[in-house]
Amino acid sequence: MSTPAALPYYVAFSQLLGLTLVAMTGTWLGLYRGGIAWESDLQFNVHPLCMAIGLIFLQGDALLVYRVFRNEAKRTTKVLHGLLHISALTIALVGLVAVFDYHRKKGYADLYSLHSWCGILVFVLYFVQWLVGFSFFLFPGASFSLRSRYRASHIFFGATIFILSVGTALLGLKEALLFKLGAKYSLFEPEGVLANVLGLLLACFGGVVLYILTRADWKRPSQAEEQALSMDFKTLTEGDSPGSQ
Amino acid sequence: MSTPAALPYYVAFSQLLGLTLVAMTGTWLGLYRGGIAWESDLQFNVHPLCMAIGLIFLQGDALLVYRVFRNEAKRTTKVLHGLLHISALTIALVGLVAVFDYHRKKGYADLYSLHSWCGILVFVLYFVQWLVGFSFFLFPGASFSLRSRYRASHIFFGATIFILSVGTALLGLKEALLFKLGAKYSLFEPEGVLANVLGLLLACFGGVVLYILTRADWKRPSQAEEQALSMDFKTLTEGDSPGSQ
Repeated sequence: MSTPAALPYYVAFSQLLGLTLVAMTGTWLGLYRGGIAWESDLQFNVHPLCMAIGLIFLQGDALLVYRVFRNEAKRTTKVLHGLLHISALTIALVGLVAVFDYHRKKGYADLYSLHSWCGILVFVLYFVQWLVGFSFFLFPGASFSLRSRYRASHIFFGATIFILSVGTALLGLKEALLFKLGAKYSLFEPEGVLANVLGLLLACFGGVVLYILTRADWKRPSQAEEQALSMDFKTLTEGDSPGSQ
Repeated sequence: MSTPAALPYYVAFSQLLGLTLVAMTGTWLGLYRGGIAWESDLQFNVHPLCMAIGLIFLQGDALLVYRVFRNEAKRTTKVLHGLLHISALTIALVGLVAVFDYHRKKGYADLYSLHSWCGILVFVLYFVQWLVGFSFFLFPGASFSLRSRYRASHIFFGATIFILSVGTALLGLKEALLFKLGAKYSLFEPEGVLANVLGLLLACFGGVVLYILTRADWKRPSQAEEQALSMDFKTLTEGDSPGSQ
């Protein structure tokens, strides 16, 4: 039931990186893009900010919940994991609506770029993962053998969707830079350098989250007490749910 | 000593994706960028082709060696792993020289973009990983406890460098597209669509390689025979290497 000595430092570092990248996204939009608003040309800027908060920072933190709250009851941790993911998805959805609405008002084409293709792929996968995860792990009907067989896929796809989110954010950042700066990008314009640093921060946040998530000796130990509780819960619910075996 | 039933299909699929992405990179450069040469403006095109072959396809395949040749002697597999990585690094180095030489001849600035920053990071990490990996695993001096403590980090950093390579390739592809197409990108130009598909192929190849690499029940079983051999090897070499404990 003890916490590995180095884990809190890595978690603190990940949060420092995550908060810095959100703050730096805000700084970039405020200093070089005129700030944020829903009604005006500034509506576009809602998109990168919501994605940095939702699809990067909150999604990353949702992955870390089982490592950070390793000694809490599993049910509490599970609910927190689900809530963080639904917040991330909701905020990201606002960011998605912002860019489509902005494109519509301006008469721009939709979904022509690699960034947008990857973005839609992330949304579809993230939504499916949330639904399937909810049905298997939070909804009481799924049998325990089904849960344990699905767990490894859930973790792999969760990590993959997170990596793809970080990659898509990098593509979007690059697109926003090149559309505005063009050839001036090569003159080491302050906006270009700031955005490059933001890009490295995004990649580092992704790397640290994945390190904490995948380190074998930092995995959450299964607790005898909660296994017993789970069995009770299983016994209690199996009588009620017609779908379970 | 048996091979999991689904593994060969996943490996075949990964190779199909990898070869298709290399062929499609060649097609893109041939159809829309005038082909490849060392002496002329076409020198730039050596860069994406070498990176697709070296840093994506060969690096990816090097990661899969322990899953694919799971029943061969570990030493043979290890040498193949090292050889594939050194080939990947060498081909990537040719690609790196090509772009720096092209920039020098044209008088373009170097290392101003996020793509180039990520690329240099990949090179430094890849080179360090190769050196440290060689010293620990192929050089006979390292003690066995040191090897087993380093193994997990080697795998994590290997996977991370590979993901970063794929991300850097996507950024480079996007950069090459936007510099040439600019606003025409939104008109669904054939070159833009081809490059977007190439980008998705890159991401899928990365995803399938990581899936094969991380699936727990596909890990290489440790073989009793080779453990005995390793111990002999250890005994034999420990007397000779003054640095080992």
